[in-house]
Amino acid sequence: MKILFLNGPNLNLLGQREPAVYGRTTLAEIEARVRKRAAEVTAAIEFRQTNLEGELINWIQGAKGAFDVIVLNAAAYTHTSVALRDAVAAVGVPTIEIHLSNTHAREEFRHKSLIAPVCRGQIAGFGAMSYVLAVDAAINLG
Amino acid sequence: MKILFLNGPNLNLLGQREPAVYGRTTLAEIEARVRKRAAEVTAAIEFRQTNLEGELINWIQGAKGAFDVIVLNAAAYTHTSVALRDAVAAVGVPTIEIHLSNTHAREEFRHKSLIAPVCRGQIAGFGAMSYVLAVDAAINLG
Amino acid sequence: MKILFLNGPNLNLLGQREPAVYGRTTLAEIEARVRKRAAEVTAAIEFRQTNLEGELINWIQGAKGAFDVIVLNAAAYTHTSVALRDAVAAVGVPTIEIHLSNTHAREEFRHKSLIAPVCRGQIAGFGAMSYVLAVDAAINLG
Amino acid sequence: MKILFLNGPNLNLLGQREPAVYGRTTLAEIEARVRKRAAEVTAAIEFRQTNLEGELINWIQGAKGAFDVIVLNAAAYTHTSVALRDAVAAVGVPTIEIHLSNTHAREEFRHKSLIAPVCRGQIAGFGAMSYVLAVDAAINLG
Amino acid sequence: MKILFLNGPNLNLLGQREPAVYGRTTLAEIEARVRKRAAEVTAAIEFRQTNLEGELINWIQGAKGAFDVIVLNAAAYTHTSVALRDAVAAVGVPTIEIHLSNTHAREEFRHKSLIAPVCRGQIAGFGAMSYVLAVDAAINLG
Amino acid sequence: MKILFLNGPNLNLLGQREPAVYGRTTLAEIEARVRKRAAEVTAAIEFRQTNLEGELINWIQGAKGAFDVIVLNAAAYTHTSVALRDAVAAVGVPTIEIHLSNTHAREEFRHKSLIAPVCRGQIAGFGAMSYVLAVDAAINLG
Amino acid sequence: MKILFLNGPNLNLLGQREPAVYGRTTLAEIEARVRKRAAEVTAAIEFRQTNLEGELINWIQGAKGAFDVIVLNAAAYTHTSVALRDAVAAVGVPTIEIHLSNTHAREEFRHKSLIAPVCRGQIAGFGAMSYVLAVDAAINLG
Amino acid sequence: MKILFLNGPNLNLLGQREPAVYGRTTLAEIEARVRKRAAEVTAAIEFRQTNLEGELINWIQGAKGAFDVIVLNAAAYTHTSVALRDAVAAVGVPTIEIHLSNTHAREEFRHKSLIAPVCRGQIAGFGAMSYVLAVDAAINLG
Amino acid sequence: MKILFLNGPNLNLLGQREPAVYGRTTLAEIEARVRKRAAEVTAAIEFRQTNLEGELINWIQGAKGAFDVIVLNAAAYTHTSVALRDAVAAVGVPTIEIHLSNTHAREEFRHKSLIAPVCRGQIAGFGAMSYVLAVDAAINLG
Amino acid sequence: MKILFLNGPNLNLLGQREPAVYGRTTLAEIEARVRKRAAEVTAAIEFRQTNLEGELINWIQGAKGAFDVIVLNAAAYTHTSVALRDAVAAVGVPTIEIHLSNTHAREEFRHKSLIAPVCRGQIAGFGAMSYVLAVDAAINLG
Amino acid sequence: MKILFLNGPNLNLLGQREPAVYGRTTLAEIEARVRKRAAEVTAAIEFRQTNLEGELINWIQGAKGAFDVIVLNAAAYTHTSVALRDAVAAVGVPTIEIHLSNTHAREEFRHKSLIAPVCRGQIAGFGAMSYVLAVDAAINLG
Amino acid sequence: MKILFLNGPNLNLLGQREPAVYGRTTLAEIEARVRKRAAEVTAAIEFRQTNLEGELINWIQGAKGAFDVIVLNAAAYTHTSVALRDAVAAVGVPTIEIHLSNTHAREEFRHKSLIAPVCRGQIAGFGAMSYVLAVDAAINLG
Repeated sequence: MKILFLNGPNLNLLGQREPAVYGRTTLAEIEARVRKRAAEVTAAIEFRQTNLEGELINWIQGAKGAFDVIVLNAAAYTHTSVALRDAVAAVGVPTIEIHLSNTHAREEFRHKSLIAPVCRGQIAGFGAMSYVLAVDAAINLG
Repeated sequence: MKILFLNGPNLNLLGQREPAVYGRTTLAEIEARVRKRAAEVTAAIEFRQTNLEGELINWIQGAKGAFDVIVLNAAAYTHTSVALRDAVAAVGVPTIEIHLSNTHAREEFRHKSLIAPVCRGQIAGFGAMSYVLAVDAAINLG
Repeated sequence: MKILFLNGPNLNLLGQREPAVYGRTTLAEIEARVRKRAAEVTAAIEFRQTNLEGELINWIQGAKGAFDVIVLNAAAYTHTSVALRDAVAAVGVPTIEIHLSNTHAREEFRHKSLIAPVCRGQIAGFGAMSYVLAVDAAINLG
Repeated sequence: MKILFLNGPNLNLLGQREPAVYGRTTLAEIEARVRKRAAEVTAAIEFRQTNLEGELINWIQGAKGAFDVIVLNAAAYTHTSVALRDAVAAVGVPTIEIHLSNTHAREEFRHKSLIAPVCRGQIAGFGAMSYVLAVDAAINLG
Repeated sequence: MKILFLNGPNLNLLGQREPAVYGRTTLAEIEARVRKRAAEVTAAIEFRQTNLEGELINWIQGAKGAFDVIVLNAAAYTHTSVALRDAVAAVGVPTIEIHLSNTHAREEFRHKSLIAPVCRGQIAGFGAMSYVLAVDAAINLG
Repeated sequence: MKILFLNGPNLNLLGQREPAVYGRTTLAEIEARVRKRAAEVTAAIEFRQTNLEGELINWIQGAKGAFDVIVLNAAAYTHTSVALRDAVAAVGVPTIEIHLSNTHAREEFRHKSLIAPVCRGQIAGFGAMSYVLAVDAAINLG
Repeated sequence: MKILFLNGPNLNLLGQREPAVYGRTTLAEIEARVRKRAAEVTAAIEFRQTNLEGELINWIQGAKGAFDVIVLNAAAYTHTSVALRDAVAAVGVPTIEIHLSNTHAREEFRHKSLIAPVCRGQIAGFGAMSYVLAVDAAINLG
Repeated sequence: MKILFLNGPNLNLLGQREPAVYGRTTLAEIEARVRKRAAEVTAAIEFRQTNLEGELINWIQGAKGAFDVIVLNAAAYTHTSVALRDAVAAVGVPTIEIHLSNTHAREEFRHKSLIAPVCRGQIAGFGAMSYVLAVDAAINLG
Repeated sequence: MKILFLNGPNLNLLGQREPAVYGRTTLAEIEARVRKRAAEVTAAIEFRQTNLEGELINWIQGAKGAFDVIVLNAAAYTHTSVALRDAVAAVGVPTIEIHLSNTHAREEFRHKSLIAPVCRGQIAGFGAMSYVLAVDAAINLG
Repeated sequence: MKILFLNGPNLNLLGQREPAVYGRTTLAEIEARVRKRAAEVTAAIEFRQTNLEGELINWIQGAKGAFDVIVLNAAAYTHTSVALRDAVAAVGVPTIEIHLSNTHAREEFRHKSLIAPVCRGQIAGFGAMSYVLAVDAAINLG
Repeated sequence: MKILFLNGPNLNLLGQREPAVYGRTTLAEIEARVRKRAAEVTAAIEFRQTNLEGELINWIQGAKGAFDVIVLNAAAYTHTSVALRDAVAAVGVPTIEIHLSNTHAREEFRHKSLIAPVCRGQIAGFGAMSYVLAVDAAINLG
Repeated sequence: MKILFLNGPNLNLLGQREPAVYGRTTLAEIEARVRKRAAEVTAAIEFRQTNLEGELINWIQGAKGAFDVIVLNAAAYTHTSVALRDAVAAVGVPTIEIHLSNTHAREEFRHKSLIAPVCRGQIAGFGAMSYVLAVDAAINLG
């Protein structure tokens, strides 16, 4: 079981970015927690972050044949990118949408996810734990 | 750690109800999986279902002081009940919203959850596994 | 052929409730007309009323295997209940939506029926005759 | 009792037009069923079809004094013609709106009927049976 | 000065059609009043009515070179016909939009006129006097 | 003069529920204040609370002939229940809508009251005093 | 027959204000044309302009008993003032709404008139001639 | 306790203005009832009316330090004036919004109050009694 | 390969109608260009125009069995006719939607095409060349 | 270079009005800062405030020929006054829209400015500095 | 005649991506067909694909002076990118919008094209043939 | 004081791009004017442009600790990029939004700025002068 974790724009700032919303855990610390859980269930993971919409698309396309599941925290692109949606639909690799915060408790424009309909499911609102739960969910999808 | 699982209208029909959408697992089988996982993490659970909106509200109110976390699959009431939302907000017991199906991939009127803003997080789209993941998420909230 | 007639909130007030809109016929008189027509076409009927949304759902669920057709006047719940819609879709018993008044000639919020898409058809605007026509329509569906 | 059945655009194609939606019964066969039922209840009927909005208006206007009830399947004009609505309101002959299919289970733009508020009632979703039921409903209006 | 008066659907029923809204004056009586006023100001008029949208378009197209001004009571087509709008814009004959009733005091769907932006002006709400005023307005446009 | 006070979902939690919004007064304390004021003006009152929409409907229906005025704090059902609205309209007992908080200063979905148009008037935003003012308003209606 | 002409904000600038839209005729010249026409039909007129919404309301209130008809060019207040609408409805003096330009051919926010529903009729788009036609329309209303 | 009653546009016409909606009581008679109640509770009142939005703003600004509570019937400006809202918010004197009629049972554009969110509460639909109840509510706020 | 070219309302005015939008080429000249291209690819064409919606429907219905492809410039009916849409869907002859102008660069109400979803494709904005390209597209569909 | 600074409703309360939003600087202090900057660049200024929409219109009209630039902080009228917009467009004096606060970070109804399209530009969110920057912008426009 | 073909996100997956929607032809095969047609009409072409919005913008900017026509299949960016629209408008090179599928027969969010208004025309729904037709259209624009 | 000027997509075309909207000044000339003003007030500036959304995000993230103020002309991304908004909010460096043109006087989709709520203020409509004013505004923020 190989799982690709993709992180979108501004997630590299975690820990210093609006801690009231996103907490003080850094992305590196989240990755460590994910790796620990993956090891327990003998899954291999890859963990990446980028601020570029196009690079996310390239990575999603590249997952075909290389990964069993994609776990996608598209951050702000969740709400604006039809291209990401098309990429997920096109490659056919099962994809899980995750969010650190409960996006439904925030601004109106964060309530709509363009990628949700083409993902298998959503896990949102549990901070770093959203990533850990996604490992278990991914294994269950495989 | 005591967790209260509440199931809303028509979930008692699981297994026979539109299996293309909801799968063939019955609610009793889901409860069994939840109990198994809870036992592994030494959590106590209570598992209930009702078709009445008012009974769900009564149960949520009764959770105060008796349970550490509520896991709520409000089914159709998710999209129409301000009263459920107020109940969740009023009792102050941390609540996790779950769904069997990916509601965002279904009819437009299922995209809006009235209870999402007052819950801690959402897990949706993984069938019975949504319930199991909620056990882990609940423990993490405690 | 067994037909279950279900009547929603406030229909027990028929005859005294806003007679300009609903006429002066009582629900008991309507039931009598329905029974008379059912007898002519040798259909068995059951005729119930409740003000509780959850009880309507319970009755719809109970119709499975016990009735061939449901005739549903959901009254005000027609416009607000996704749970009723899900119940109708879940049990798979053919259901006919009826209304005493022409709901489209009334307030804007009565123009939208949440249950219409999962019913087989609609009969509305003919007063008590809407119920009688539903007997014939039900037999035709069987 | 004289009843005028008016059929709008494309209904002349019934039987060959999208049979999954409209069934395989032709308009001539429907007319035959209507005539049979009308004979049983000793009603006289006239049965017409046209693709022209203006001709429907002319026919509705001509019904005044000549017919007791109009049964109108305006097909696509149901959703776009204020002129038909005005014609029905202007002549004052009681009019019953009918549809073969359950329009509320189809595209969004078929959910709104411009003529519904000026008709006495609606019968929809029962295929050819919608026409037969309209005969009984018409007699009841007379 | 030659003026073409065009009347749309159901205006032939004036006098008997919903007299509370449209009054008891017939279209022939209105024509007589228009002819009288036209004679006083030595204008020639032509006065027509049709229930067909396409015929109105044909008449508007035919006005080019034959009439100086069109006075158009498009009735229900006012609110639904882009084709009429295009015809008015295409022929370039100055056109005055008139209505018997104050359409803004009626149903919401009568508040929007598709032809208003391509007409020179509007006169509405004065009953038959709307037509007479249009004669004077037309002369002023010439 | 007999007045029926009806309280909807979650109002039984008053005093402990979101005190920043609803204050620290309990429903029992409010009832006491209402009884005191009623005694001063020699009015008889009945004071009830329920979390079930259907029970509220039953109580409203039962008020006919038994009470002169209904004072209704429908809480969350204010914004979602057409059935309550129909009940109020059907029984014909003058009804006063009240709220503890200023609902217009809260979430968008609390700005619309479905029952307002069929009530006589509204009193909102004065906490427990909203109930006391309703006693005086009720007497004035009688 | 006494007619009160009321002109709203910025109409005092006529002749110099955006001549492409409003023409080069001044308000004084329009008044002269109105007086000339009024004299021909032996009507008395009063002609006023103000930039203050409240002054327009005062004038409308003062028209009761003093004038037979109000001709109102409310200019920009047409689209924003519920208070003007209420004033027109309150005094009960028949009121004609006029505009120099064809407001429906301009910006979207000029398409909606708040005062139209309480006026008898509208004359718009004929420049100064809109005022002259209003004299004739007013006499016809008297 | 000093209370400032402010009345907006067209309220000076009370008694003669649309009596079906507003009743036959004049503003002077309402003032008398208010003064009588104020005397009973030893409150001092000031009672004013104006048709000018700007004058209402001036009065609200002047209330600071001079009055303990403002009771504001802004009439039509309720629905259109952001400036009034800002004035209420700016001066910080507790303000009660009142209406004679049940605005929610009238035209759609009267359902939205721009000043409601910055007022303490609303009393509406009780005719002159709305003013009297406001005296009691004001004292309770002090 | 037989292709039916159908032209809707006002297209007979091409060349003289708003040349800034539609160019100076007449419909006859366009037909000539189409015939020339059809001859090159040995396709047979029929070329018709009408201002009547109903006649377009009749022609589309008549195409079944007689033509391989319909090329439809429905002009203004593109945006308002559900009946045309139903006709295209009903006959099952592959249909290509064309426009002379780029409708998306014009008024808002021209951006929505009711027939687009039931056509195979669209060619718009190339003037007469839109017709010529449709010949090649049609052959490709055959 | 002569610049007219116009301030709308409630700006006279600056310094005491909601200091969290508007700061503690008074309008007089702002005027002083503006005069100082104007002196440095040898511009003459006039500085006025009013709560009346009509007076703002009068002042704008009076600016023609007397001032080179208007700097307009219309406050609440920014969002509701078409009349102000028309005044700015009518006089043709270049106008700069300014705001103390960042209106886009506040309530939804403050996001739309009716006057923005007819102004040359906007400066908003810099408190008193918005006024000082406007001096420089005005000189640059001259 | 030099033509630049630009392909947006996910089009590199053609042939394997959702073949039910996009067919089994690869982008390389489409390029071959385009080159063949271009050779026949002696046009030079350049053919590129990228998943990055910014790179598309760079390419469009670079087309100025280097190409006579741009043929743009912006894929998902069609519906979300104002920046692409601005680029097309800025460079002034005539641009043709193309799509493989009939976007109007797909999800609602694909019905709106942000770039359509600044392109010369659209060709959509003909699969690879959309590209070939664009060659002919481009030559015709030159 | 160090200020970072960031320019978004297509701004590198200034001077040649739609000069009627954006003027003939190039971005290099604007930079020169900014540098001159910065030198006068002894501020250090950095001036960059990119067509890539992701690069703008990287630059904004990099400003933390390196610059005191960001001046951001996000061009088309202003209206579509939630990711830019999140970047501005995340880094916490005070940001000023600027535009060359008055975006409110242009197309509807340019009226909404997604980044405005997280910026300190806006300066728009003054061409190159918008940049110069931003230098002064930035110093004032420091």
